[in-house]
Amino acid sequence: MASVRIREAKEGDCGDILRLIRELAEYEKLSDQVKISEEALRADGFGENPFYQCLVAEILPVRGELQGPCVVGYGLYYFSYSTWKGRTIYLEDIYVMPEYRGQGIGSKIIKNVAEVALDKGCSQFRLAVLDWNKRAMDLYKALGAQDLTEAEGWHSFCFEEEAMRELAGR
Amino acid sequence: MASVRIREAKEGDCGDILRLIRELAEYEKLSDQVKISEEALRADGFGENPFYQCLVAEILPVRGELQGPCVVGYGLYYFSYSTWKGRTIYLEDIYVMPEYRGQGIGSKIIKNVAEVALDKGCSQFRLAVLDWNKRAMDLYKALGAQDLTEAEGWHSFCFEEEAMRELAGR
Repeated sequence: MASVRIREAKEGDCGDILRLIRELAEYEKLSDQVKISEEALRADGFGENPFYQCLVAEILPVRGELQGPCVVGYGLYYFSYSTWKGRTIYLEDIYVMPEYRGQGIGSKIIKNVAEVALDKGCSQFRLAVLDWNKRAMDLYKALGAQDLTEAEGWHSFCFEEEAMRELAGR
Repeated sequence: MASVRIREAKEGDCGDILRLIRELAEYEKLSDQVKISEEALRADGFGENPFYQCLVAEILPVRGELQGPCVVGYGLYYFSYSTWKGRTIYLEDIYVMPEYRGQGIGSKIIKNVAEVALDKGCSQFRLAVLDWNKRAMDLYKALGAQDLTEAEGWHSFCFEEEAMRELAGR
């Protein structure tokens, strides 16, 4: 079996990351919402003050095979802040291609994010999941996460760009 | 009537901000969860790479009154990232002291955050609210926000520190 490596993303991975972002949005049945470009991912993640960090899961080629390593999953996160607990890490996206599931790659990415969080002095690790995605919900709960929407009643709200312009009077 | 000014928080406001963080947590019936200190707020918000930004609402003294300006509300936010829309602003907390509500201070803070978001090239402005807090939900909806938990089924998940240590094997 080919071996899997989790590593920090490089700027050159943005094409692969965008391919997987689109696959994830399709899986979430919300693919019409993807407006991001490879250029934006490069500028926002690899400039002087990056807006996000990313891990990729790479399948290393088996000896004798000609093709190079292949990115089959990713976890995109950033640092946020809780006024109750302080520094927090937020895993915005986690995705593994369907044909590579069931090998623990998702759990490896989550463990890696937890390590980064602890190294950076974060005391919380948050993420969001769609309510019909039982497989993901069960995995996160099995790994020790709590469903705060269920337990405490938190709802996510969002102003889209048009609503923001309205608010700002622009 | 005294006038209200919304301005960026300074390091010296951290005592007032902590007082209001505690009041908000009490209002949310979750005050046992507040573990933050004034020192952590100073270090995390006013160092070289701040983890958050904050606006405060200040009542300016009426001419002839002796006391100085008084911080009666705050909005604490940070920059995050959407893999669908790119740069995003996240309003972690917004709070106005009960005796100063009904004067539009909360809306002013939200408008100010929307302005910062647009200036920084953000195309989304997210926040979370407890399901029983109808007053807040109605305000955000009236201002143009969408309830993504209701509309799309997003649930917030969280690993606390102990679960993270378990994940990281520490």
